[in-house]
Amino acid sequence: MEKIIRKPTLLLDEEKARKNIRRMTAKAKKSSVRFRPHFKTHQSALVGEWFRQAGTTAITVSSVDMALYFAQHGWADITIAFPVNLLQIEQINALAKRISLHLMLESEESFKFLEEHLSAPTQAWIKIDTGYCRTGIPAQRSEKVLALAKMLARSRNLRLSGLLAHSGNTYEASSPEQIRQIYNDTVHKLNALRDILNRAGLQPIEISVGDTPACSLVVDFSGVDEIRPGNFVFYDLTQLSLGSCSQEDIAVAAACPVVAKHPERDSIVIYGGAVHLSKQSLLQKDGTTIFGAVAAQKDSGWGSLIPGSYLTSVSQEHGIVHVPPALLQETRIGDILTILPVHSCLMVNFLREYYILKKI
Amino acid sequence: MEKIIRKPTLLLDEEKARKNIRRMTAKAKKSSVRFRPHFKTHQSALVGEWFRQAGTTAITVSSVDMALYFAQHGWADITIAFPVNLLQIEQINALAKRISLHLMLESEESFKFLEEHLSAPTQAWIKIDTGYCRTGIPAQRSEKVLALAKMLARSRNLRLSGLLAHSGNTYEASSPEQIRQIYNDTVHKLNALRDILNRAGLQPIEISVGDTPACSLVVDFSGVDEIRPGNFVFYDLTQLSLGSCSQEDIAVAAACPVVAKHPERDSIVIYGGAVHLSKQSLLQKDGTTIFGAVAAQKDSGWGSLIPGSYLTSVSQEHGIVHVPPALLQETRIGDILTILPVHSCLMVNFLREYYILKKI
Repeated sequence: MEKIIRKPTLLLDEEKARKNIRRMTAKAKKSSVRFRPHFKTHQSALVGEWFRQAGTTAITVSSVDMALYFAQHGWADITIAFPVNLLQIEQINALAKRISLHLMLESEESFKFLEEHLSAPTQAWIKIDTGYCRTGIPAQRSEKVLALAKMLARSRNLRLSGLLAHSGNTYEASSPEQIRQIYNDTVHKLNALRDILNRAGLQPIEISVGDTPACSLVVDFSGVDEIRPGNFVFYDLTQLSLGSCSQEDIAVAAACPVVAKHPERDSIVIYGGAVHLSKQSLLQKDGTTIFGAVAAQKDSGWGSLIPGSYLTSVSQEHGIVHVPPALLQETRIGDILTILPVHSCLMVNFLREYYILKKI
Repeated sequence: MEKIIRKPTLLLDEEKARKNIRRMTAKAKKSSVRFRPHFKTHQSALVGEWFRQAGTTAITVSSVDMALYFAQHGWADITIAFPVNLLQIEQINALAKRISLHLMLESEESFKFLEEHLSAPTQAWIKIDTGYCRTGIPAQRSEKVLALAKMLARSRNLRLSGLLAHSGNTYEASSPEQIRQIYNDTVHKLNALRDILNRAGLQPIEISVGDTPACSLVVDFSGVDEIRPGNFVFYDLTQLSLGSCSQEDIAVAAACPVVAKHPERDSIVIYGGAVHLSKQSLLQKDGTTIFGAVAAQKDSGWGSLIPGSYLTSVSQEHGIVHVPPALLQETRIGDILTILPVHSCLMVNFLREYYILKKI
């Protein structure tokens, strides 16, 4: 492996990723919910094929461009889980003519624009904010949800599919128990809103939820119709720290050349910085902030995290790695360090080209 | 402008950038130092031409790939200001045959590898750590500097050009005065080392420094031979906060579509997140942390920062913008907000394609 890696390179352990896909697929099936994985994490037609082989037919993306990319690769049922970017209406119409397109709505203003400019039937999901405070109609504003649902019920091209939430606040949870509580609270709020819509005489609608921490930790998805986790395909140090995966589940890493050593401060400098790994940091339980951690090298892929070896800072191209003296001693300039990411979605977005590790 | 912008787009104000280039060029000339601007900030052949038109002939980059790119665009004197990535020796040799290539060294280990594998003459700079603690031989370890200088003096293909430092610690300074102190301290330490090398009978060598805060605030570059600032071509909110530029000097911005509005929490959601602007944040004097700030729209380009309008968080594709009620009221979904970046180098690296604003 080292012989062909010359600069920061995205490593993907196919076996681990396929295992993560199979596990989440089986879980969704057991609860009889639709599995609509979020493809923003991998943004790869090839990894998409691994999902297809595991039975996936419906997917989620976070931009019109990603929807176009996956539509070109044969995906015919796509949700753009991002407030509709009205400026891309031409591309949205092109997609709506070609595939089963699901849009996410949260305002009368966007509804009116779409009602006027959409030229083909699309599915609409009302985005509900169940506590993350990023997007969506706050769950307590049931009158706003009902008003938008009624507009959609009379729409020409938009058909109301259901209520959709992303409980990103699970990422701030301090324990797996708290993640489960946030999940239960989300499902409770969405069902309460569904009841209100039902009582108002609207057609039956679905409920869609999905964040990796909750989907990894919750066993039974009763009360929802669809889950949309994304990060689980690769996981990362953030998920490890939340308790939603184990070390062995992390399926991506960055292989970074060692360019300098500083024994006087127990550090190694790697070619691998913010433009490769992102500036996303993780506050560890011991109070230190890290930007990645070093895993042991193996002939094929990587092994366990090396205790006390982590990225303490990243500049544009540099990464500073704190390492124990023994590792520093045995490391040569020109060696490769394998870095597990704090946030796999961002690292993958930046490095883009996968180097796939596959057992022969 | 708004008519053709449909997704997060990098805006470049040509007049401002050219003015920044002219100002720094004149300053270097006045002090009779070589101007070797860092091109990692813009990474653009076109912006490179603006420098060429202002008289620049020597440049700095931070990777072998960037050196290859600019060599292809006619630059013949390039310093790679990054510890040599030995794994790219083939490309380094290809460059060394074609242009005047300057490498940055800090260890005997790298020296020995290069001595064995370099196939064409190159210039070598010894990297000195004057207090930033990222890379380089600590300035107080003069015996290590002297030992490496002596090895270089006997080298086959490496010719010692001088001592090079990057005082990135100016970015942590709390006042312009402190930035000047760090600069003076750096120049003092480098000259003390040069004296030691001179006394040991080595050939006269040069001193190269360069970070945008110091190069913007220091008036007289006596005692150095070369400056290598990079960020100054665009500047950003970090530089504004350090006092190294004014609002009017910031030459890049991101144009981001408005996708949702949340009057209940004074916020607007834009299509523009960590993959466009980076996760780099800035701690403001009032204790808030921001990821960008909103500038007023103008027919051509942008105007002043709008007080109280800034990005409070970024996810992969979303940005959450805090705005005063008046701005929220007048903003429509589908409008464009112009965001000035916390760190222009990272934003430019991610957005890549420039949309150039030019007065006709």
